[in-house]
Amino acid sequence: MSDRTGSGGPLSAYGLDELRGRHSAKWRHHPPQVLPVWVAEMDTPLAEPIVTALAGAVSRGDTGYATPCGLPEAYAAFAARRFGHHADPAAIRLVPDVMAGVVEVLHLVTRPGDRVVVNTPAYPPYFYWLPRIGRQVVQSPLALGPDGHRLDLAALERDFAAGAAAYLLCNPHNPTGLVLGEDELLAVAALADEYGVRVVSDEIHAPLVYPGGRHVPFPSLDAPAGARSVALVSASKAWNLPGLKAALAVPGEEARADVAGIDPEVSESAGMFGVLASEAAFSEGEPWLDELMAGLSANRTLLGELLAERLPGVVYRPPQATYLAWLDLRALGLGDDPAEWFLRHGEVALYSGLKFGPPGSGFARFNFATSPALLTDAMTRMSDALTTRRTSTLNAP
Amino acid sequence: MSDRTGSGGPLSAYGLDELRGRHSAKWRHHPPQVLPVWVAEMDTPLAEPIVTALAGAVSRGDTGYATPCGLPEAYAAFAARRFGHHADPAAIRLVPDVMAGVVEVLHLVTRPGDRVVVNTPAYPPYFYWLPRIGRQVVQSPLALGPDGHRLDLAALERDFAAGAAAYLLCNPHNPTGLVLGEDELLAVAALADEYGVRVVSDEIHAPLVYPGGRHVPFPSLDAPAGARSVALVSASKAWNLPGLKAALAVPGEEARADVAGIDPEVSESAGMFGVLASEAAFSEGEPWLDELMAGLSANRTLLGELLAERLPGVVYRPPQATYLAWLDLRALGLGDDPAEWFLRHGEVALYSGLKFGPPGSGFARFNFATSPALLTDAMTRMSDALTTRRTSTLNAP
Repeated sequence: MSDRTGSGGPLSAYGLDELRGRHSAKWRHHPPQVLPVWVAEMDTPLAEPIVTALAGAVSRGDTGYATPCGLPEAYAAFAARRFGHHADPAAIRLVPDVMAGVVEVLHLVTRPGDRVVVNTPAYPPYFYWLPRIGRQVVQSPLALGPDGHRLDLAALERDFAAGAAAYLLCNPHNPTGLVLGEDELLAVAALADEYGVRVVSDEIHAPLVYPGGRHVPFPSLDAPAGARSVALVSASKAWNLPGLKAALAVPGEEARADVAGIDPEVSESAGMFGVLASEAAFSEGEPWLDELMAGLSANRTLLGELLAERLPGVVYRPPQATYLAWLDLRALGLGDDPAEWFLRHGEVALYSGLKFGPPGSGFARFNFATSPALLTDAMTRMSDALTTRRTSTLNAP
Repeated sequence: MSDRTGSGGPLSAYGLDELRGRHSAKWRHHPPQVLPVWVAEMDTPLAEPIVTALAGAVSRGDTGYATPCGLPEAYAAFAARRFGHHADPAAIRLVPDVMAGVVEVLHLVTRPGDRVVVNTPAYPPYFYWLPRIGRQVVQSPLALGPDGHRLDLAALERDFAAGAAAYLLCNPHNPTGLVLGEDELLAVAALADEYGVRVVSDEIHAPLVYPGGRHVPFPSLDAPAGARSVALVSASKAWNLPGLKAALAVPGEEARADVAGIDPEVSESAGMFGVLASEAAFSEGEPWLDELMAGLSANRTLLGELLAERLPGVVYRPPQATYLAWLDLRALGLGDDPAEWFLRHGEVALYSGLKFGPPGSGFARFNFATSPALLTDAMTRMSDALTTRRTSTLNAP
């Protein structure tokens, strides 16, 4: 077993052989010769406080139906320390995951047939789950300028004005890593108030904002739309717990009754180990998180260097949060689905941009929550594939 | 820590202090002075193969998005050995839990507004989740005669004839422990064929049939309705894993396409640890299950003895499967909700019969998957509460 506490930090703890022993989507979706950098799982070991919590649960046979335990309190304390947001734990409800929480909240605050605005490119499961409960997805593209992506308030206003019941905000944004500042969020809130739109805020990546940025929970805003909003939060991204199934619905002051309407059946369908691991993460996992962020920050830079050196033409805008890079690969001339091309020709699996909506054409999402060695391996596979193509084109009769 | 491998088997491994250290619904829903015998969790440690699987997953940090791994194959082999049912693993789909699987299958094989027949008394979450997806619950009571509960085929035919799209069968039945024989199931299948009703079969308690009975998976029936049916199965009840979130949808031959329609988003929202624990349970957990069944069988008898001795008047029909006793407490004169009475007066928490539908009035569900000592403690609390009432009534002015 490789050194899990070496100078590389949690991102360098495991080697490829160990990672291939995992059973999760990242490591099982493709054949073993493919290097996966698609789905948002990290190649890290669990933080020690989480290991302790889970080992205790296994020893106690603590595998019954989930209760929230101290998770709402642990999250509230974390949010107070980290974001300056003072949420009332008594108002917070347990849900199985952020997507399920979004569905529950939309089920409670909107009606079948209602229009829900999402910014594209967008987290692909939105496109499945919102129609699944009879809500229409209204795609409101982010603006893409020379400085990268930004929220297009004029487009958002048009979409609100056309009759939206809710706005499913994703902040920090997946896949672009955009972090909205307080002023922008207040402008969103003003629009939401003007057009009577409820804001449901997917803040799953909130703990993963890089230095220079600051996460502002939407329910913490000093605006009526903030008070009427619900944020969905989780430890799943920052501590790599997506398979353990726990997240929280955190209401603003005026949304407490809505969130209280989440049925106990829903909370009980969360995962008991998700609750215990998340509670440990939020209450004792900050040192690990800080070490992780240092490693991710270094990878974020390394990725830029490797791209510049080996894949010139690729446009990379370092994300302000998350370990996801939204790569603009259009200059490579690989068509609308470069992820598919690199899977076939480079045995490296990126997340197809097409799944994020029309603005994803020619883009792909690259997950850099891995070791610098595997990050470099992925870049090598991509550049070698391009070189081979260039050579074979030259050699073509 | 008490002896986990002592002569008492898994049911006697933990004492009350250890159990009170758990975080699950059974042990956290009521204050600590209350002895819980309500929700279907067992007071057992995890089977060794499950401990090994989970410890490995913690060590690998294997907490990413769930994949089915070898779970369909492990279940198929278990079902072949245990039930003589040869299911094709390739047709089986992962779902987060049996209730979620029922919802998914009904979503695919029925339409909003459709009527779905369930036998009452019924597992309470049916009454929440079926209306949640716009399906009407048609309550078809089991018949209750001197020999206990049985399926009322005439009533079922009336309900099918009135225009039902699906029949949500629960076999073995919760809360009565009724196990339907092959002849009865074939009669159900004939009715389903006659009236064009799809059968969705909740078989979560299938591994828990006592000697003398035999579980017949509905999709294994030699009848068109069997081939068109879908069974939902899980290791969660027999190995106490409800908090880890994994179950399977097992189609009959003609329902393969329906089950293939379960979206990958749904399968991926299962729990990774649930998959790993369930695979270990089905493939290596039979010796533990056999030991458990011996202990449950003894408790099933002990419960009858204690009731006869301390709570005369209570009608108890030993279940043919499950660790649930559906107690007819009407003779005690405690009103329609005796569970509520015993909670208040005896500090023992049974599951209120009222939550199982109208036939539950005056009934309560008692979970005997605990040690003989705690089973006796619960009976003592109940009989003491009744004695105190009798005394205080006698002493009343």
